[in-house]
Amino acid sequence: MHPFRPAEPGVKLSDVETPALIIEMNAFEQNLETMEKALAGSNARLRGHAKAHKCSNIALRQIEAGAVGVCCQKVSEAAAMVAGGVKNVLVTNQIIAPRKLARLCALAKDSEIAVLCDDAATVPILSKAARDAAITLNVLVEIEVGAERCGVDPGEPVATLARLIDAEDGLHFAGLQAYHGSAQHKTTAEERRLDIESTLEKVKTSKRALAAIGLDRDWVTGAGTGSFPTERDSGLYTEVQAGSYAFMDADYAKILGNDGMPFKTFRHSLFLWTTVISVPRPGQAFLDVGHKGHSKDSGLATVADLDGVEVDGQSDEHTKLKLGHNAKPLSTGDKVKLIPGHVDPTFNLHDWVVCVRGETVEDVWRIDGRGPGF
Amino acid sequence: MHPFRPAEPGVKLSDVETPALIIEMNAFEQNLETMEKALAGSNARLRGHAKAHKCSNIALRQIEAGAVGVCCQKVSEAAAMVAGGVKNVLVTNQIIAPRKLARLCALAKDSEIAVLCDDAATVPILSKAARDAAITLNVLVEIEVGAERCGVDPGEPVATLARLIDAEDGLHFAGLQAYHGSAQHKTTAEERRLDIESTLEKVKTSKRALAAIGLDRDWVTGAGTGSFPTERDSGLYTEVQAGSYAFMDADYAKILGNDGMPFKTFRHSLFLWTTVISVPRPGQAFLDVGHKGHSKDSGLATVADLDGVEVDGQSDEHTKLKLGHNAKPLSTGDKVKLIPGHVDPTFNLHDWVVCVRGETVEDVWRIDGRGPGF
Repeated sequence: MHPFRPAEPGVKLSDVETPALIIEMNAFEQNLETMEKALAGSNARLRGHAKAHKCSNIALRQIEAGAVGVCCQKVSEAAAMVAGGVKNVLVTNQIIAPRKLARLCALAKDSEIAVLCDDAATVPILSKAARDAAITLNVLVEIEVGAERCGVDPGEPVATLARLIDAEDGLHFAGLQAYHGSAQHKTTAEERRLDIESTLEKVKTSKRALAAIGLDRDWVTGAGTGSFPTERDSGLYTEVQAGSYAFMDADYAKILGNDGMPFKTFRHSLFLWTTVISVPRPGQAFLDVGHKGHSKDSGLATVADLDGVEVDGQSDEHTKLKLGHNAKPLSTGDKVKLIPGHVDPTFNLHDWVVCVRGETVEDVWRIDGRGPGF
Repeated sequence: MHPFRPAEPGVKLSDVETPALIIEMNAFEQNLETMEKALAGSNARLRGHAKAHKCSNIALRQIEAGAVGVCCQKVSEAAAMVAGGVKNVLVTNQIIAPRKLARLCALAKDSEIAVLCDDAATVPILSKAARDAAITLNVLVEIEVGAERCGVDPGEPVATLARLIDAEDGLHFAGLQAYHGSAQHKTTAEERRLDIESTLEKVKTSKRALAAIGLDRDWVTGAGTGSFPTERDSGLYTEVQAGSYAFMDADYAKILGNDGMPFKTFRHSLFLWTTVISVPRPGQAFLDVGHKGHSKDSGLATVADLDGVEVDGQSDEHTKLKLGHNAKPLSTGDKVKLIPGHVDPTFNLHDWVVCVRGETVEDVWRIDGRGPGF
């Protein structure tokens, strides 16, 4: 039971069935190159976050453009990446179910594998899984960086947990995860920089505590699209986990760069290709996609390439457009290109992403890690 | 590439992998029976909305419990339902793409098929699809009932469009779609009743205009979980399109019944089965599911069966719980059962739903119509 495929290579964009998720390849490749250049000469390499796209073909392109491997959030994503040919996966999450850990450890025959820990109670579970699989599992300790999410407090608690991990059969304490999620979306570059400077202090405090017990490691991983220059320039981070940089979305379009102007380091490359299916009254149009094709968790999508037209609401099955006085009228059958509100949960709604170069479909990639994640 | 299946029949609920969507079968079956009894002796039969669950096994259970067939919102959902054995499908949406219409008309060899129209410009497209498939396609006119969604204005505009449809080769004007979506979620039964009484006037006005040109038809379809007693009792509606009634969610849990008390006609039967994966500080716990396993478009999920614990936030990958002073502490590995915020977009995130009776898995159903919908 293969999911419906909205296009085949070679067809025109105008012939792609809707609602389809599309990548404009020129912009996508430019984003990969921009990130590669941005990290060149620094201490940090990209470990692109595959939770953003869940697509092994995209991961392979990121790796071709210099990424050391990928992060995943779920073992099922990791399995899809490894099946697709990725050779280095860090699961940036607490995995504690023995069956999930068994599946994760089994991937080690084809890939480098690592996972996080933030709780002494789960160390024996990780150890048993590694021993059962006859591997040494790399475990990073997640630091709580101030966002009140998962992680242990910086300094001594990090060192205590690291020592426990490293002493356990089958486990190797490998480094630190220090990712500040909420910093990524703060409006000004200064706000983001201040959040990360506080994160850097927490990393330094932790590394000092680790050094005191002989467990300081080089591997420090974290950083996202909105903040990564600060982590990169710190000299502390060896990896940047950005994911959205390759695509961008309406939420990231709200942040500002260093100059106080809209953040233009990366281009929008991800779009939702839709069709007007109803124009019931003047000034309104309804598209053939709602919550099941794009996620409004971080705000509504925006309209690309149409002056005076804005997204005015979203329901289960429709997106409502409002046409300003100067907008060109829309008719049923017209195509509309949206910029999704949020990359990650939108990719997760689709089974395929259609790769478009100019006006022609170049490829159609399966979103092979799609799903709630097991 | 089959998606991961979180359980097999016969295993204990405690052994189901998380995050899994589960149906408690006793409550589900009671909801089906409650609806069957509620419609018994009325003019209206159930046409359960499969956009809610996108699962042909669920549709078949609804049909066993008296439903005339299903509604779908997408041709791909209709195709999944027909492949699963459903013999009567109404697509309650404007389908205007020739390829989608060709696929819809092809289903007519195995099922009754009907579709909506709200625009004279699309009538020739519907006609061509029906003629190409050598079928007569039943077309209902959608009335704009006051929610400012799709549909034509009641009265003359409905009759004008109906005449155009009925005169077209391959098409049969079959009846009226009059569904008031926003009425379903108004808090009091009185507010919902007032919205629907206004809808009933629009249906009557339209039927009078149709009768004047000899095109009055019996088939009137619409009504949802929150409002259906009013449509049922009107004598005008022949079908009720409720979908959520079989499952319920945290959003519907906010509405009140006729007595001003919480609406208890139907029971919660749909849950998200999750695991605590991090307890980084007192009073907090993090679950292994976020936006990719339940949708917060209509508000957050709630916690079932745990006193003093509430959902305090949801991110891409986690759901954050807040524990009150009197709550029993949670540890990593503990299972938590959530009531999803909104049935429809949550089903759409999952590939399987696990059917549980008591503490044992009875069956695992594929959500075979899942996806953005083509």
